[in-house]
Amino acid sequence: MRQELLATSIRIQEYIHRTPVISSKTINSISGAEVFFKCENFQKMGAFKMRGAINAILNLTEEQKNRGVVTHSSGNFAQAVSLSAKLLGIKASIVMPSSAPKVKQEAVAGYGGEITISEPTLEARQAAADKIVNETGATFLHPSNDMDVILGNSTAAQELIEEHNNLDVLMTPVGGGGLIAGTGLAANYFGNGCVVIGGEPMLVDDAYRSLQSGKIESNTRIDTVADGLRTTLGDINFPIIQEHVKEIIRVEEDEIIAAMRMIWERMKIIIEPSCAVPFAAVLREPEKFKNKKVGIIISGGNVDLGKLPF
Amino acid sequence: MRQELLATSIRIQEYIHRTPVISSKTINSISGAEVFFKCENFQKMGAFKMRGAINAILNLTEEQKNRGVVTHSSGNFAQAVSLSAKLLGIKASIVMPSSAPKVKQEAVAGYGGEITISEPTLEARQAAADKIVNETGATFLHPSNDMDVILGNSTAAQELIEEHNNLDVLMTPVGGGGLIAGTGLAANYFGNGCVVIGGEPMLVDDAYRSLQSGKIESNTRIDTVADGLRTTLGDINFPIIQEHVKEIIRVEEDEIIAAMRMIWERMKIIIEPSCAVPFAAVLREPEKFKNKKVGIIISGGNVDLGKLPF
Repeated sequence: MRQELLATSIRIQEYIHRTPVISSKTINSISGAEVFFKCENFQKMGAFKMRGAINAILNLTEEQKNRGVVTHSSGNFAQAVSLSAKLLGIKASIVMPSSAPKVKQEAVAGYGGEITISEPTLEARQAAADKIVNETGATFLHPSNDMDVILGNSTAAQELIEEHNNLDVLMTPVGGGGLIAGTGLAANYFGNGCVVIGGEPMLVDDAYRSLQSGKIESNTRIDTVADGLRTTLGDINFPIIQEHVKEIIRVEEDEIIAAMRMIWERMKIIIEPSCAVPFAAVLREPEKFKNKKVGIIISGGNVDLGKLPF
Repeated sequence: MRQELLATSIRIQEYIHRTPVISSKTINSISGAEVFFKCENFQKMGAFKMRGAINAILNLTEEQKNRGVVTHSSGNFAQAVSLSAKLLGIKASIVMPSSAPKVKQEAVAGYGGEITISEPTLEARQAAADKIVNETGATFLHPSNDMDVILGNSTAAQELIEEHNNLDVLMTPVGGGGLIAGTGLAANYFGNGCVVIGGEPMLVDDAYRSLQSGKIESNTRIDTVADGLRTTLGDINFPIIQEHVKEIIRVEEDEIIAAMRMIWERMKIIIEPSCAVPFAAVLREPEKFKNKKVGIIISGGNVDLGKLPF
């Protein structure tokens, strides 16, 4: 696995930005921890999803590439697949729920992805994607439950660890599980004892409950402000999470919004609500992180400025 | 002057951040120019004003430092003087207009500045500051019409030129004139032929008219969204601007808001409306900047998130 992780990093490096790692004395002073933010909001198309998408497509056979790729996504993975396909000269079909933010639909179209709008249920999205697969022979790419996507995602943590090799904790938000699974692998093979902790909204705490029960749990409601975290774990990433993630801390909606606003105001960077969840977890349980070196993957910055939560 | 500029850069460097210079392929593609943003929104206290304030205070005598400093400012210079004074262990009294954004008042208080609220007219602000000077013997620091402040401000452009020594154009917003004057000096002595162009809101185009008439003009209204640019030039910075600034391009309010939103959405950084004015000028007159290397000083990032123009 160590070799696969390193090979992935080399495979995708020419297609992605090596994003900066930034810190703020004010943020450290407020939180009591020493926090290093890996800024995937500055990644191509504005989110870490670029890493998994480009890796998955690069690993296709030539024949598969010729038939194109298809995915369904509420936003960032759709943009990532569209841009990756464009960079590699192949066709991308994107099923987007009718509820997807306009800014994300426009971005997908801007990157050349061919959009099909579906009802905003997971079932409707999957059915629309299956239809395209059956009609065109395109390869379906899952946003989070795909080993090549997970390996691609791992490279953000690999880069962060390369720059700061003495982290005590690595944190990510937990949605579909693809980012934290990749981060868990990177921490295990390169992290020098660094533990991985996830942040999850209380409203959609399926991953927290899945780790408790030992099986993949679902959510009864999905109305969290952290719109990137409404999905649930999958059978490929769950065992990795069980093995390599120490714990998941749950946070309330108002804590997410306050943490998001604090990062905007103090660090002058635009981050999605989802990315504020790990920092909200640090603020919620400060004694756990006191004087610790904490790496946080800022997963994306694609916000609809017309619909801010403050 | 060349020696003074270099000495200033060395004098203040331990008190300020060397801010990053960032670019975006999307921004370049939209504008037709190659734009380098010098990110003073990431400066200490969130704006370039830190450079001028710390330089002015460092140049005081010990006796002057003991008596403290006083200024009036609608925001960023107030924070800059407060933080600079705190770093150097001296007292800062700040006169703020009652109209100053709450986030800026809180920041001044957070940095230890002692706030006096005045009516929001220049006359009332100056009278309140004069009163403090008379009572305490504190030194008055002007936000823009002060040679030490101008020299301090010049260091942002000096750093940008150090990293990109082949710029065709250097741009800043124009408010009180302190930033563009310092930038003009830096471009003249280190810029390798780089010209300086200002951006100014049409609604408060006093600097544009001052360059036309040859004397310092005032504004009849100040209700621009670019709240940092409502002030007028002074007798110290105006001659420097006449000598070293090639032209000032005026932009409409909706152009400022659109440019600001574009930078937020595409670059994922938080900038004040004032900083969007030079980029709005590039978008307004694209033929002038086509294929040129354009440096833009992003002057600050202290935005009241509760009062966004979009």
